[in-house]
Amino acid sequence: MAFTLAEIAARFGGRVIGAPQVLIRQVGTLERAGDGQIAFLANPRYRARLAATRAAAVIIGADAEALTALPRIVCDNPYAYFARVSQLLNPPEAVVPGVQPGAQVAPGARIDAGARVDSGASVEAGAVVGPGCWIGAGSCVGQGAELGEGCRLYPSVVVYAGCRLGARVVLHSGVVIGADGFGIAREDGHWIKIPQIGRVVIGDDVEIGANTTIDRGAIEDTVIEEGVKLDNQIQIGHNCRVGAHTAMAGCVAVAGSADIGRRCTIGAGAIILGHLSICDDTQVSADTVISRSIRQPGTYTGMFPFDDNRSWARNTALVRHLAELAERVRRLERQLQQKDPGHG
Amino acid sequence: MAFTLAEIAARFGGRVIGAPQVLIRQVGTLERAGDGQIAFLANPRYRARLAATRAAAVIIGADAEALTALPRIVCDNPYAYFARVSQLLNPPEAVVPGVQPGAQVAPGARIDAGARVDSGASVEAGAVVGPGCWIGAGSCVGQGAELGEGCRLYPSVVVYAGCRLGARVVLHSGVVIGADGFGIAREDGHWIKIPQIGRVVIGDDVEIGANTTIDRGAIEDTVIEEGVKLDNQIQIGHNCRVGAHTAMAGCVAVAGSADIGRRCTIGAGAIILGHLSICDDTQVSADTVISRSIRQPGTYTGMFPFDDNRSWARNTALVRHLAELAERVRRLERQLQQKDPGHG
Amino acid sequence: MAFTLAEIAARFGGRVIGAPQVLIRQVGTLERAGDGQIAFLANPRYRARLAATRAAAVIIGADAEALTALPRIVCDNPYAYFARVSQLLNPPEAVVPGVQPGAQVAPGARIDAGARVDSGASVEAGAVVGPGCWIGAGSCVGQGAELGEGCRLYPSVVVYAGCRLGARVVLHSGVVIGADGFGIAREDGHWIKIPQIGRVVIGDDVEIGANTTIDRGAIEDTVIEEGVKLDNQIQIGHNCRVGAHTAMAGCVAVAGSADIGRRCTIGAGAIILGHLSICDDTQVSADTVISRSIRQPGTYTGMFPFDDNRSWARNTALVRHLAELAERVRRLERQLQQKDPGHG
Repeated sequence: MAFTLAEIAARFGGRVIGAPQVLIRQVGTLERAGDGQIAFLANPRYRARLAATRAAAVIIGADAEALTALPRIVCDNPYAYFARVSQLLNPPEAVVPGVQPGAQVAPGARIDAGARVDSGASVEAGAVVGPGCWIGAGSCVGQGAELGEGCRLYPSVVVYAGCRLGARVVLHSGVVIGADGFGIAREDGHWIKIPQIGRVVIGDDVEIGANTTIDRGAIEDTVIEEGVKLDNQIQIGHNCRVGAHTAMAGCVAVAGSADIGRRCTIGAGAIILGHLSICDDTQVSADTVISRSIRQPGTYTGMFPFDDNRSWARNTALVRHLAELAERVRRLERQLQQKDPGHG
Repeated sequence: MAFTLAEIAARFGGRVIGAPQVLIRQVGTLERAGDGQIAFLANPRYRARLAATRAAAVIIGADAEALTALPRIVCDNPYAYFARVSQLLNPPEAVVPGVQPGAQVAPGARIDAGARVDSGASVEAGAVVGPGCWIGAGSCVGQGAELGEGCRLYPSVVVYAGCRLGARVVLHSGVVIGADGFGIAREDGHWIKIPQIGRVVIGDDVEIGANTTIDRGAIEDTVIEEGVKLDNQIQIGHNCRVGAHTAMAGCVAVAGSADIGRRCTIGAGAIILGHLSICDDTQVSADTVISRSIRQPGTYTGMFPFDDNRSWARNTALVRHLAELAERVRRLERQLQQKDPGHG
Repeated sequence: MAFTLAEIAARFGGRVIGAPQVLIRQVGTLERAGDGQIAFLANPRYRARLAATRAAAVIIGADAEALTALPRIVCDNPYAYFARVSQLLNPPEAVVPGVQPGAQVAPGARIDAGARVDSGASVEAGAVVGPGCWIGAGSCVGQGAELGEGCRLYPSVVVYAGCRLGARVVLHSGVVIGADGFGIAREDGHWIKIPQIGRVVIGDDVEIGANTTIDRGAIEDTVIEEGVKLDNQIQIGHNCRVGAHTAMAGCVAVAGSADIGRRCTIGAGAIILGHLSICDDTQVSADTVISRSIRQPGTYTGMFPFDDNRSWARNTALVRHLAELAERVRRLERQLQQKDPGHG
């Protein structure tokens, strides 16, 4: 599989500068791309690498088009353009349909003729697996769960009973969709379980990373809207809504009943507490705890700064005495004010 | 399945106000419950929803019983009461016993006649699976592990060799019980593994959320006492003890040899460092790192506050200079004291 | 299996004091070891336990050798010595070769005659499983993946297509190697997926804890060098390099393209942001966010201190007003300076 720059530009737009007949077989990084490979420059910070690259061609913005003499495609969004070129050169593996030996399909489950179920997987009664789906080895689709067209479950995914996936949903290994939410009521020092009778409902074109978990709703559903992208090891509590096209980096924890808007980005290890809402187009930085609702789009941060251990110890001890420090400053202000009332 | 308010009150107590013959088929939220559904009001913050609810009946405390004219059950703990009603209306699926096709039971494993093992699951030599247990698809019960009566392992659970589960233990998908603890000794810049020869021992009525991991002890056992409730993605290190009826929210990390008391609650994403103890009835807030032992019950918090990114950057830079700021305040105090010794 | 102190010292060195013929059958802790068990003292903090121990013998440093009259082995590094003795007394279970009933091996996969594949596991086309490997129940080795000699995959491990494991790599249950990295490009409020065409390459003698995930590279490989030890629930993003003999405690998150040196230790719950490098021999404390490159070996910390909830609330509110506090101190300094220019 190979495409000339001209062919690529014909598909995806952009302006070719230099030899349009250069053949591209694969993508690469500026540092290591070689013959037949196309690299990209999206971040100005890496401009220095442009001079040294041995790539056959580059994808580049207009602001940097003069910085290289290599064959290049000039476009508005080099990173997105690169994504499309890489998709062209690296198409997903075709689904070879069929229920493989060693897979278990319960009576009453409906597997589309164009779907594949790998060995060791099980599809339980009443489940529906749409055309073009691929259920990986050892995965489990629970009773009455439904998967839209073209879903991919990598090996060892579990979808609990009754959950719904839209079209083209990708679940990586170890993902668990629809386990019980953490619903317990305290009585006399013990906990009484609250049955979790809602479902998880996932929109089209959602991709979910390895070992991420999304709990079913306590009464109503947990909802992941279309186009959401979740990295690995994320936890989404029961009754949450994650708005369309929101992306979360690894290890985010979202407590129950949080309502997260559309097109948000949530940084690695952030924690969203429960029963609050975050408006559309909000950016939460890594390691930030969102402890109350956010009603204005913007970037929000709450990361504690690291330091060498000795400096950290000295400064951090004072965090626990800030109220005293503030009181001492207040006292100084009062003293100076008394001395010199006209001054402050 | 349906019960009148009178029948419910006959089972669980409480005082019926309004039509006792109202039929209840399901639970619901104040906002969306309709015909045949019972809702509850536990948190005064949601009182406004009471006026608008279309629920058939509500469970409510005496403090709020006059706020609605709907048929209602008045009780001391509406949330716990609701839990019981929901359990009544949503009983767990009955276990249909039998080793299913595609399950592997090793010679020498003992599966009670009243237990079920789903396809793709494996039960290894010497393991004991008690009456009423249900081992989900693709789960694995290791050599010599023992499961008490009525345990439920959802699909893709792993119980390593030799571990012990009490009665009615529920393990959600992706749970790993008894993997090796992180025991390594450093020598000349390399690590030497310390065999982890203890077990995990879990008491009765413990429920553990999806993808939570509990490591086996290095020498002695890791112990989870009865009635503990763990949410998803929690990590419990080797040799820990988690006291009875303690509950932990998602993504908590507990390092090795921590000893956590009874009836504690640990918030989402909290970290409990190793080789320390936390007394009974302690509450740890979300995102809090417990770095030394706690000997007084109470609520402990160490969450860094979030802010808009610009304010955060300005304030946080100063955290790293707190010691200087404190020194400047000290200097000011000295100066004022010297000027006016009688004043301070 | 039992060894005398003399036999142990003959294997591993050290100096025997007291009866060299004492028979050792197992290791134990100072508190609970009894007849036939050897304990160790590595941390001076536990010296008090030495007096009360009922162990048959102890492993101890020269600094403490006079503190007990028990038979003992004196050595430089008692903890590492203990590790070796425990390995001697607790050898790993021998691998009984063979593809077990219920395992699926695709045509074209090469399983060494000395390897074992348990029931419910699947090995896909083109995969290579080396001598002495043990693939646990329900695990999956993807297309073209290669496992060196003596690897152990516990049940429910997934190795994606094309990944490479060195010799003696141990992967605990729920580990996912080679899922897609989180590569997405934004365009018009949507996300375009960037195919992840790199691999994960893991060196010899790496051990990886339960439910840890390591993503494949976007273009080039994610690399885990020899001797790395990772605890449970860790996330390693695409394109990272983790240097040889580095160890990470549970729940660490490493974002994409981080380059971590050799012999580093990373504490529980730490977060390493992406596109930065950490030099060899760096120690990162628990719960610390590394937000820029580290070029000097040392210990780095950024943990927010916990406190009782009331004190925390009072002090933390002030963190968000530190800039104001600093400004007030500056104003006081100016006022005093103006009053008394010769003083400051």
